[in-house]
Amino acid sequence: MTTLDLALEELVTANRILAREGVVDAFGHVSIRDPGHPDRYVLSRARAPECIEVTDFIVFALDGTPIDAAGRQPYAERHIHGGIYEQRPEVHAVVHNHSPAVIPFGVTGVPLRPLMHMCASIGSVVPVWDSRAVFGDTNLLVTNLPMARDLAGALGDRPVALMRGHGCVVAGPSLRDVVFNSVYLQLNAELQLKAAGLGAITFLTEGEVDAVGRTRSSFTHERAWEYWCRRAGRKYDPRPMSGPLAEGR
Amino acid sequence: MTTLDLALEELVTANRILAREGVVDAFGHVSIRDPGHPDRYVLSRARAPECIEVTDFIVFALDGTPIDAAGRQPYAERHIHGGIYEQRPEVHAVVHNHSPAVIPFGVTGVPLRPLMHMCASIGSVVPVWDSRAVFGDTNLLVTNLPMARDLAGALGDRPVALMRGHGCVVAGPSLRDVVFNSVYLQLNAELQLKAAGLGAITFLTEGEVDAVGRTRSSFTHERAWEYWCRRAGRKYDPRPMSGPLAEGR
Amino acid sequence: MTTLDLALEELVTANRILAREGVVDAFGHVSIRDPGHPDRYVLSRARAPECIEVTDFIVFALDGTPIDAAGRQPYAERHIHGGIYEQRPEVHAVVHNHSPAVIPFGVTGVPLRPLMHMCASIGSVVPVWDSRAVFGDTNLLVTNLPMARDLAGALGDRPVALMRGHGCVVAGPSLRDVVFNSVYLQLNAELQLKAAGLGAITFLTEGEVDAVGRTRSSFTHERAWEYWCRRAGRKYDPRPMSGPLAEGR
Amino acid sequence: MTTLDLALEELVTANRILAREGVVDAFGHVSIRDPGHPDRYVLSRARAPECIEVTDFIVFALDGTPIDAAGRQPYAERHIHGGIYEQRPEVHAVVHNHSPAVIPFGVTGVPLRPLMHMCASIGSVVPVWDSRAVFGDTNLLVTNLPMARDLAGALGDRPVALMRGHGCVVAGPSLRDVVFNSVYLQLNAELQLKAAGLGAITFLTEGEVDAVGRTRSSFTHERAWEYWCRRAGRKYDPRPMSGPLAEGR
Repeated sequence: MTTLDLALEELVTANRILAREGVVDAFGHVSIRDPGHPDRYVLSRARAPECIEVTDFIVFALDGTPIDAAGRQPYAERHIHGGIYEQRPEVHAVVHNHSPAVIPFGVTGVPLRPLMHMCASIGSVVPVWDSRAVFGDTNLLVTNLPMARDLAGALGDRPVALMRGHGCVVAGPSLRDVVFNSVYLQLNAELQLKAAGLGAITFLTEGEVDAVGRTRSSFTHERAWEYWCRRAGRKYDPRPMSGPLAEGR
Repeated sequence: MTTLDLALEELVTANRILAREGVVDAFGHVSIRDPGHPDRYVLSRARAPECIEVTDFIVFALDGTPIDAAGRQPYAERHIHGGIYEQRPEVHAVVHNHSPAVIPFGVTGVPLRPLMHMCASIGSVVPVWDSRAVFGDTNLLVTNLPMARDLAGALGDRPVALMRGHGCVVAGPSLRDVVFNSVYLQLNAELQLKAAGLGAITFLTEGEVDAVGRTRSSFTHERAWEYWCRRAGRKYDPRPMSGPLAEGR
Repeated sequence: MTTLDLALEELVTANRILAREGVVDAFGHVSIRDPGHPDRYVLSRARAPECIEVTDFIVFALDGTPIDAAGRQPYAERHIHGGIYEQRPEVHAVVHNHSPAVIPFGVTGVPLRPLMHMCASIGSVVPVWDSRAVFGDTNLLVTNLPMARDLAGALGDRPVALMRGHGCVVAGPSLRDVVFNSVYLQLNAELQLKAAGLGAITFLTEGEVDAVGRTRSSFTHERAWEYWCRRAGRKYDPRPMSGPLAEGR
Repeated sequence: MTTLDLALEELVTANRILAREGVVDAFGHVSIRDPGHPDRYVLSRARAPECIEVTDFIVFALDGTPIDAAGRQPYAERHIHGGIYEQRPEVHAVVHNHSPAVIPFGVTGVPLRPLMHMCASIGSVVPVWDSRAVFGDTNLLVTNLPMARDLAGALGDRPVALMRGHGCVVAGPSLRDVVFNSVYLQLNAELQLKAAGLGAITFLTEGEVDAVGRTRSSFTHERAWEYWCRRAGRKYDPRPMSGPLAEGR
C-alpha cells in the first residue's frame, strides 16, 4: 500500500472511532490535509462516519472545490475544514462534531475548562463561536468560506472551539491528536456537567495545563489509538500516517 | 416487490430504528397512511416495535376499525394515529413514543425548545396535551376517537406534541421525517436537561428555526437513515416509500 | 415438560431479564411461590442472576429452610422472600434488587411517586423501610426472619417498598407482574431524577393510578415479556406459569 | 499451569473486567504483588487494560526498576504501585483508575461517602490527595517515588484515596478485593451524584460500615467475580490466586 492508501485507511479508522465513542452520530466529519498536497484536504463524501469506506473519500482544494468528486455529494459544511487549514499551516487534521456532552457549554455561557489531566490538551480557554454575531439568523450550517473563516478566526491558534447551538471543531497536527482531543473534550464536558451539580470546581491550573502540554509524548495517543481501534473493530496500525509525525516514524 | 411491499419493509425498519435508538421500549408505535388509500393507515398488531415483522401489519380505517385484522389484536391506542391523519391531510406518518428524555418536559411545565440546529425541526413551540383537562382521571391511554381528536387539536399543524405523564406524538410527511424528528426530539430533551443544570439557555431564535426549515433537504434524512439502518441491523434502501416524497423519487 | 419445569424456565428468564435491563447486577434475586406447595418458594442458589440455570434452583420452606439444597449455598437474604410470602397469600413472585436509579430515593427522604402511566402500578405510596429503626447498626442484610417480617410489615399490602441504603422489594401475583414493576419502578425513578432537576413535578393523580390498576390487562405484561425475552436472548413462551394467572390460561 | 501462570491469567481477567465495567478506558492499571517475591510487583507493559495479554506483564522491584522488561515500555506511573506496596505489607493488589463517576468528588471538595451497603468497603472516609500541595504545578502524573510515597501517605491504611484532577487508587489484600472496591466505588459515586440532586443524603453510619466490614465473606467477591468474568468474556476460575487468600483455598 502507498502512504496515501495507509493514510486513507487511518482516516476510515478515525471516522469509525469517533462513531464508536459517541462523538459523532449520523453527522460530524473528520479530514486530513492531503499528505502530498498541503493546499488540499481529504474528506468523505456526505455520509455518516460509521458507514464510511476508503472509496468514499474526495480531495478538495482549500476553497472547497472538489478535485475528484466524480458525481459524489460533498458535505455542505466541508468549508469548516478548508477555513482552518488555510489559516493554520501546522494543522494536518480537523474534526467537526456535535458531541451531546459538549453542546450544553455552547448555549449557557458556562466556560468549558479542563478539570482532569487527560483533558488538559483541550486548552485552558475554549472559545465559543456564535454564527449569529456576524451572520445573523441562519440555519447555523457553515456552508461557505466567509463563515468558515470567521469560525477559524475564533479558533485562533487553539485546538478547540465550540459552536453555539451546533457543536465544535478540533484541530491538530495529526489524526491521533484530533481524535484524542475530541474524545477527551467530550469526557471533560461529561465530568464538568457532573461536578457542576456538586459544587464549585477546582480546574487544572494554567501551570498544570502547560506541564501536560510540554510533557505528553506521542505514546499517549498510541495507547489510546490501539484501544479505540479494538472497540471500533478496526485493525490497529502502529504507524500514524497523517501529519508531520508520519515522517518521523 | 410492490410499492406496498417496500413501504411495509420501510415500516418494519422504522420500528426497529426507534427501538435501537431508545425512543421506544416494549411500547410506542409508528404508522403510515396507506399509500393506496389515503383514508386508511397501516400499523402493526399490538407488539413491541423491536419484534415487529411485515406479517404483523394491519390496515385500519381512520376511525380505527381494522380492515384485515384476521384475529390479530390491535393497539388500544391506534386512535392516536387516526385522529391525526383525519385532521392533517399532508401527514403520511405518525410516531407515538414514551422517550424517557422527553417525559420530564411533560410533567414540569418547562417548555421543550430547540437549542441545536439538528433539532430545529421539532418546532419553536412544543405544546403539552393533558388528558385530564377534558377527560378527567383516566388511565391516560388514548383509546377512543374523542381523546385522539382532542390530542390532534392540541398538536394543531405542528410536528410534535407532548402528552403529560405519558409521552409524545410526532407527525410528518414521511417515515424518514417522523423517525428523524423522534430521535432529535429525544436528543434535544437530553441536551436541555443537561444545559438546564448549568444555567440559562440560549435557544435557537425563531429566525434560525425558520431558516433550518426552509433549507433542510431530504438528503439530511437520507444520511441519518442509512446510519440508523446499519445500527438496527436492517438493509438500507435509498428509496423512501412513505409519503408524497415517494412519488417524486 | 411438566408445569414445574416450565415455571423454572420462566424463573431463569426472569433472572436474565432483570440482569439485561440493569435492574440487578451480581446481586439481587427473584423467587416464585412453589406452584405445587404454597408453603414453599423457589429461589436460585447464591449466584448472579445473569449466570443462573435451571439446575441452580432450591426449594425453601417459608422459614428459609432449604428442602433440597444438596450442598448448594443459599442466598443469605432468602428470608426477604419467605417473610413476604407468609404475610401475603396472594403473592406468587418476589424480586429483591439494588437498582441504581431507585436507591437515591431511599436515602434522601424524597418520595418516589408515579409520574407516568406505565409506572402507575408501583402504587401511589412507596414506603421506605429502614433496618436501623428496629435493628440498629447492622450490615443491612436481611438475614433472618425477624428482619424480613419487619420489612414485610412496612411493605403491607403494597407492591413495592424501598430499603434505605440497600435497594427495594417488589411483590406481586406472577413473575410477569414483578418483573414489569421492577423495570418500570426503575424507569419512574430515572424520570423523577431528571424531572426533579427541571422543577416541580405533576405526578399522576390517585384517580389516574386507580384507573390504570382497574384497566390494565395481562396483555400489557405479555407485550413487554416478549420484548424483554428477545433482549435477554431467551425463548419467549406465551404461557405464564407462575402465580394464579397460570391456571387461567 | 503453575501458581504464577494462574495468577497472571487472573490479572488479565482483572484488567478486562475493569475495562468492561467502565472503570478504566485506555488508561488506568492494576497490579499484584509477586506471589513468590513480596518485594516485587507484576504490572503490564504500558497498554490499555482491554488489550492486555499474559505476555504483556513485567515484574518490577518496589522502586520501579523492571526486572524483565526485555525492551517493553513500562507505565510511567508504575510508581503508584511500588509506593503503596512498600508501605502496606498486607496489600497484594492495587488499582489506579480514572472512573468518570469518581473524578467529580476529587475536584469539588464534596466528600465521597458510602450510602449503600455494597459500597461500605470503600471506607467511611475517602481522602483526596492533591499533587499540587507538595509538588506544585505538574502534569499530575505520579512518575517518581517521592510523589508515590506522598500519595501512599494520604492513603494511609485505607482502601481508597482520590487524586485531585486525576483519578483514584484502590489497595487491598487480593485482586478480587480491589476490583470489587473499584466497581462499587464507581457505583457509590454514581448514586451520590444522583442523590445529591434530590436533597440531603443519609449515608451509612460508622456502625453500619463497620458491620459490613466484619461480616462480609469472600463469597461476596466470588459471586461478583463469576458475573464480571461472564460479562468480560473471560473464563471464570473459582480459585483466587492473588494475595494471602490464595494460600488458604
